[in-house]
Amino acid sequence: MNPFAKRRSESVASLGEEGLIAAIRGWLGNATPPAPRGIGDDCALVGGPAGPRLLTVDPVVYARHFDDSTPAAAVGAKLLKRNLSDIAAMGGRPGVAVVALALDPRVKRAWVEGFYRGLAACARRYRVRIVGGDVAEAPGTLVASLTLLGTLGSGRAVPRRGARLGDRIYVTGRLGGSLRSGHHLSFEPRLREGAWLARHRAVRAMMDVSDGIAKDIAALTPRGAAADLDPSALPLRKGCSLREALCDGEDYELLFALDRRTAPGTFEQKWRRAFPRVPLSRIGRFVRAAALPSGAIRLSDYRGFEHLR
Amino acid sequence: MNPFAKRRSESVASLGEEGLIAAIRGWLGNATPPAPRGIGDDCALVGGPAGPRLLTVDPVVYARHFDDSTPAAAVGAKLLKRNLSDIAAMGGRPGVAVVALALDPRVKRAWVEGFYRGLAACARRYRVRIVGGDVAEAPGTLVASLTLLGTLGSGRAVPRRGARLGDRIYVTGRLGGSLRSGHHLSFEPRLREGAWLARHRAVRAMMDVSDGIAKDIAALTPRGAAADLDPSALPLRKGCSLREALCDGEDYELLFALDRRTAPGTFEQKWRRAFPRVPLSRIGRFVRAAALPSGAIRLSDYRGFEHLR
Repeated sequence: MNPFAKRRSESVASLGEEGLIAAIRGWLGNATPPAPRGIGDDCALVGGPAGPRLLTVDPVVYARHFDDSTPAAAVGAKLLKRNLSDIAAMGGRPGVAVVALALDPRVKRAWVEGFYRGLAACARRYRVRIVGGDVAEAPGTLVASLTLLGTLGSGRAVPRRGARLGDRIYVTGRLGGSLRSGHHLSFEPRLREGAWLARHRAVRAMMDVSDGIAKDIAALTPRGAAADLDPSALPLRKGCSLREALCDGEDYELLFALDRRTAPGTFEQKWRRAFPRVPLSRIGRFVRAAALPSGAIRLSDYRGFEHLR
Repeated sequence: MNPFAKRRSESVASLGEEGLIAAIRGWLGNATPPAPRGIGDDCALVGGPAGPRLLTVDPVVYARHFDDSTPAAAVGAKLLKRNLSDIAAMGGRPGVAVVALALDPRVKRAWVEGFYRGLAACARRYRVRIVGGDVAEAPGTLVASLTLLGTLGSGRAVPRRGARLGDRIYVTGRLGGSLRSGHHLSFEPRLREGAWLARHRAVRAMMDVSDGIAKDIAALTPRGAAADLDPSALPLRKGCSLREALCDGEDYELLFALDRRTAPGTFEQKWRRAFPRVPLSRIGRFVRAAALPSGAIRLSDYRGFEHLR
């Protein structure tokens, strides 16, 4: 079959990313287990006699995640850090990785050297070992995929689904303007923070923000609930609008739900003691969808970054 | 940096695949451990408290591993089977997989459906669970990478490096004409055979043949040795020439070295009892490079499939 559609209505673009992922789950059927062991979280949980491991894969694509202005070393580091952010979002510790590079034969040697040197420097920094990979020829393209294996430091993986009505919503760091500010290259995956949060049972659900809170928070929101977000509490990056903070994406911050029975003041004090230089913002809570107050952000007015549209 | 070179001399094509992989190893430096725990075997060995696991990644690329004539379901199955063949080549058993799909938004929904349904059917057949993945937009492209985790049934991983002077060289199945015959889609990864071979300590080195024996056997050949291959012993696929058997690639057969102290007749008898329908051919032995007899195949006259040239 020729893979390319002539009409948009026949293409994956007509489904959008979320529709496509839902469809893939259906097509895979019982070849994929239910979440958190299957599709639908930041990492998959892989069972084993020595306890579960985390498994995640994320790519960088030319003209999508980087362009001619990006230093090749920064592309290599970004590839690893995107995956580290997924490990962080489950509260895990990174282990080993494999890299699949698909590239046009005209790609510069100097680019590939910069890419791998940048990847290696980042791997050393986060104690990840690159144990293998593949190089394949791909006409007109430059795509690198990294698969990262991790372990659970605390023995607990924090899932995306787990929040309940009344739970408070927190986010680390600042939001918005990631491309403009260079944050999409310079960010530090929140590994220490994620592991710390996983040790706190009151943290019931967690994910990393990669496509903007406006879109991503849906994955954390309990059935029948809505996120009541306080616009004045959102930690905007300097010079960013509310819309940019909600929609830009590539924040790589942790978004999590804290048990409503936990005193937020005490929790926040502990955080500040553990991470004095990392902002933590209490940005709202989950309420019944019908009970959303009039001052709350109407997320339907915003859209996070949507792939394949 | 713009990744694309104007002059061939600046491109990765000037290195070729093997030169590129050697260079990557250097660029990664101590971020990659030495083989078999690092780059250089069919799978990486990942240590863990419950014993080692196998980790491998392989892609399928449009216009490279499949084209408009390939049913989408066969592409999905081929993607998994390529990786299964790498697990087989270490003597392992497959476990769970993640899939990263990078695709142009114009790709047909029907193609993607066929791809995942074919992948799922193949996964069920080989008891692999697809536990996660990623979908990313990639202008003008269609690349899918699968990462497969495996375990060691017998507790022993058979490496590529391990053969010695005098060891006999064997290959399973038939060679050549893989594209023409459809073997590149219809092949069965030699999982049962690989696991059986790993239980025999006399099997000292093993790999799967993906780029043709003429190229691949170098990875199995001990230092200072040469493969003395008997042209009349090579198992040619029907209608194939010697050159095609040596160079075509995509055979996905097992190539291995048997300890010279083992009686080949007894070993071959055991094989026939275990796998009455799978041909096993004793195609030669490793000799001192200077002692290659005049009747042997001069591998330098042949080249296996070389990527990135």
